Amino acid sequence: MGKQNTGLHFEDFYLDQRLRHATPRTLTEGDVALYIALTGSRFPLQSADTAAQAVGLPRRPVDDLLAFHIAFGKTVPDVSLNAIANLGYADVRFLQPVYTGDTLSAESEVIGLKENANGKSGVVYVRSVASNQSGKAVFSWNRWVMVRKQNPEAPAPETYVPDLPVEVPVSELSIPEGLNGSGFDVALTGSPHLWDDYDLGERIDHRDGMTIDDSDHTLATKLYQNTARVHFDERMMSSTPHGRRLMYGGHVISICRALSFNGLANAITVAAINGGTHSNPSFGGDTLYAYSEILAKEALSRDDLGALRIRTVGVKNLDSQEVESPTYEENGRLRYHPNVVLDLDYTILMPRHRSEC
Amino acid sequence: MGKQNTGLHFEDFYLDQRLRHATPRTLTEGDVALYIALTGSRFPLQSADTAAQAVGLPRRPVDDLLAFHIAFGKTVPDVSLNAIANLGYADVRFLQPVYTGDTLSAESEVIGLKENANGKSGVVYVRSVASNQSGKAVFSWNRWVMVRKQNPEAPAPETYVPDLPVEVPVSELSIPEGLNGSGFDVALTGSPHLWDDYDLGERIDHRDGMTIDDSDHTLATKLYQNTARVHFDERMMSSTPHGRRLMYGGHVISICRALSFNGLANAITVAAINGGTHSNPSFGGDTLYAYSEILAKEALSRDDLGALRIRTVGVKNLDSQEVESPTYEENGRLRYHPNVVLDLDYTILMPRHRSEC
Amino acid sequence: MGKQNTGLHFEDFYLDQRLRHATPRTLTEGDVALYIALTGSRFPLQSADTAAQAVGLPRRPVDDLLAFHIAFGKTVPDVSLNAIANLGYADVRFLQPVYTGDTLSAESEVIGLKENANGKSGVVYVRSVASNQSGKAVFSWNRWVMVRKQNPEAPAPETYVPDLPVEVPVSELSIPEGLNGSGFDVALTGSPHLWDDYDLGERIDHRDGMTIDDSDHTLATKLYQNTARVHFDERMMSSTPHGRRLMYGGHVISICRALSFNGLANAITVAAINGGTHSNPSFGGDTLYAYSEILAKEALSRDDLGALRIRTVGVKNLDSQEVESPTYEENGRLRYHPNVVLDLDYTILMPRHRSEC
Repeated sequence: MGKQNTGLHFEDFYLDQRLRHATPRTLTEGDVALYIALTGSRFPLQSADTAAQAVGLPRRPVDDLLAFHIAFGKTVPDVSLNAIANLGYADVRFLQPVYTGDTLSAESEVIGLKENANGKSGVVYVRSVASNQSGKAVFSWNRWVMVRKQNPEAPAPETYVPDLPVEVPVSELSIPEGLNGSGFDVALTGSPHLWDDYDLGERIDHRDGMTIDDSDHTLATKLYQNTARVHFDERMMSSTPHGRRLMYGGHVISICRALSFNGLANAITVAAINGGTHSNPSFGGDTLYAYSEILAKEALSRDDLGALRIRTVGVKNLDSQEVESPTYEENGRLRYHPNVVLDLDYTILMPRHRSEC
Repeated sequence: MGKQNTGLHFEDFYLDQRLRHATPRTLTEGDVALYIALTGSRFPLQSADTAAQAVGLPRRPVDDLLAFHIAFGKTVPDVSLNAIANLGYADVRFLQPVYTGDTLSAESEVIGLKENANGKSGVVYVRSVASNQSGKAVFSWNRWVMVRKQNPEAPAPETYVPDLPVEVPVSELSIPEGLNGSGFDVALTGSPHLWDDYDLGERIDHRDGMTIDDSDHTLATKLYQNTARVHFDERMMSSTPHGRRLMYGGHVISICRALSFNGLANAITVAAINGGTHSNPSFGGDTLYAYSEILAKEALSRDDLGALRIRTVGVKNLDSQEVESPTYEENGRLRYHPNVVLDLDYTILMPRHRSEC
Repeated sequence: MGKQNTGLHFEDFYLDQRLRHATPRTLTEGDVALYIALTGSRFPLQSADTAAQAVGLPRRPVDDLLAFHIAFGKTVPDVSLNAIANLGYADVRFLQPVYTGDTLSAESEVIGLKENANGKSGVVYVRSVASNQSGKAVFSWNRWVMVRKQNPEAPAPETYVPDLPVEVPVSELSIPEGLNGSGFDVALTGSPHLWDDYDLGERIDHRDGMTIDDSDHTLATKLYQNTARVHFDERMMSSTPHGRRLMYGGHVISICRALSFNGLANAITVAAINGGTHSNPSFGGDTLYAYSEILAKEALSRDDLGALRIRTVGVKNLDSQEVESPTYEENGRLRYHPNVVLDLDYTILMPRHRSEC
């Protein structure tokens, strides 16, 4: 078989299997600067030590999504190298902030298996955990992927489909140790709007647009050390229906999060991703826009911070104002506008107005 | 109106108004490496700790222009989001070196206003100051911008046009504390030419050329956290006369400064920008060249360093040798060759030959 | 003549001439992150402090090739600015690891000269050494370059062609101080294959492909502060037979080394480059693939690490499996498939299986 990693096929997975992923990665100021250059992100805690210190953190944390993409990338060579489709993710928890100098590594456990009726592939469910150099968990997440069988004669495993939560309950959100929203100054972002000012169901079109060139998304995805060939090999992709390199969906999330600054500037940190749909592919040259809807507004057992559950919808090559919210089809599935590339359901933390006693 | 920042319109500005800009930014080795990758700059003090230490600095400072672009970018969402044109800048002072780990924030004060005769727009003059985490001013600069009115019925403000200096006087240049040109060794740059060797009126064509792709200038401009949409949104720009994304003029300055190494290698630090004209736009795919003229050669009250006032002219898609100096039209305005993209008037510091006693 | 560097011409070189190259460069975490973004490299010692510490190093070293390219770039303005062709390199020794914070500078000595029969150019042989801020040599290498004469009347120098070794003997390889392969855990890379498992003559096709856009290779080459105009100036190159910017050959080496992870994951460090041929040019838009052959398998005087001499062949726009090994023509020269862009002969260190006593 040779010495190359050819990934696991559906018949190679078994329930409770544990996968220890290569390669660990130290995150540094170099990654942080590149992430700003790749996304234009301006969220203050991740931009300035002074902003982080104003709310009780020792210095600026690494952007939640940057660190997550690096952790996620580690799972690809084992979990999804032979994937036909990345079907979904759920219960993504940001357990504690990552700082420069931290080294992340990742492990996964197979938590579900279901062979497809055609006997040629099946769905693998994994729960992954990324840990830092002290062994502390920094992210955990579930995803499910449709994976090819190599040997169609291999017997089907017993079907087990795990029960995955549709959201991370607010009571289980991890709030970074020491974070104190009462030190937050809206001058840090220029936006006066805090948690109290957002309304359930409110929609915010984020105005700004960003064109992503092939170099941009491939630099990002290499930075994340993600090895999925579909993102890098233009020649191979030219003979697929896509015709060219696919933009990594995680980078689309990052761009939309960066665009959301204009309207959600005080969403200082991501606490959870409840789920997400990449409804259409994005390619180099696409211009991305985004709008957000407030899905839930939840108080915490403290009055300096609140949680907002947000749907951020990414739109390509069309002003977001021209796109209506996705609607349910008769079969219960969401029907998306053909220019919608992302429907992300996540929870952020935002400072609250100080109560005047 | 919603929660998005829509910028200020002409009628929103008033004299002496103070604007505190978002988002503060910590500069790091990541920014420094990216700046080298984006410009190819080889000026020694900004490239090597050993070179900086040879002239008395603790370690390499952040490139003056990189730090300036980041500070400048902060003013965009407030000052120029609704700009029709960036008309000019003057009296740009580099007050003290920026080091990695420093956090910059910026404030502006409105120092002049003049509504246009058509009543649809006006010119806003601001003086901006960027400070570090200790509150020390690191740059100050003036610029004036033509800004749209949102409400054409809004009354015109009293006209006040500030008196802006055509140059920063040499006597007012800030020389970095501890900087001692007598420690400079021309082997650091390979160029034997020091302050004493340049002649008033001398012209230097910088030979090298650099093609800038769309990814390059958009990465740079996102790194600078500049949010002007004209640089990022290819789709929006495709319906303008430009037809595509505009390169940020500040990045053109940086490229020309990097090109000027070949002929001005010992121009170790930028002390002031006296003024500048972006006479034509630059786009992804343009190849930039540059030449410089020595406008003034001024001794300082010390003999280790001298100041050179320089005009650096950036030229696109044509050898700089084929371009003559801009000439004055009858109306007193400079007439530029259509391939000239930049006419920058600035002052640098350069070590002098040691006097042989 | 002006103040620009116009490089040396053949008649400017003389035997034993010493060239001190500009500009010194401090390497940082910014360079390291960019290198990962530009290559997607996943070799563990260079990716994670924890991996480096597991094998006895204080923290992750800078990738051998990144540091080498930066050192190499310094020699260009003096040695090869007027080169007609880069003919070869030999005896490239990686003498000790480079860490972030180190400042590299480079010097060269002319070790051979041979004017061409046409009297218009000649071959210059140089031995270069890069040193760190403590004056310790970190790399040494020989290369030879065909350089134009400026004055065809200049007399030919005495011909001296140095005797260059075809390989760096294993007994002379520098092994990083403190490096202890017995601490290596194959979980760091996910590949179980160690030195003992590779066979002489074994071929490994590395599967993965990577499309390199113009922005990618020019960012890399600017990061390396390499000033050869052929890489940057699209306008100048459009009137050459190539028709466009050439990819820097050193970056092709880096991409192929990164691709070789898939099959040579435990090749933890490069110890020497014995020689290399850039048999065809690469351009922006090319997709690179690679295969490797084990040329020699040599034990060291220790049982934690072994050396592998490897030929890695880079192929553009064609699966590496479709390319056979280069064959010798009657004239003794190697004949390459037209899609082969690189034939690199180098020596790496790889941990060995622990002997079971």
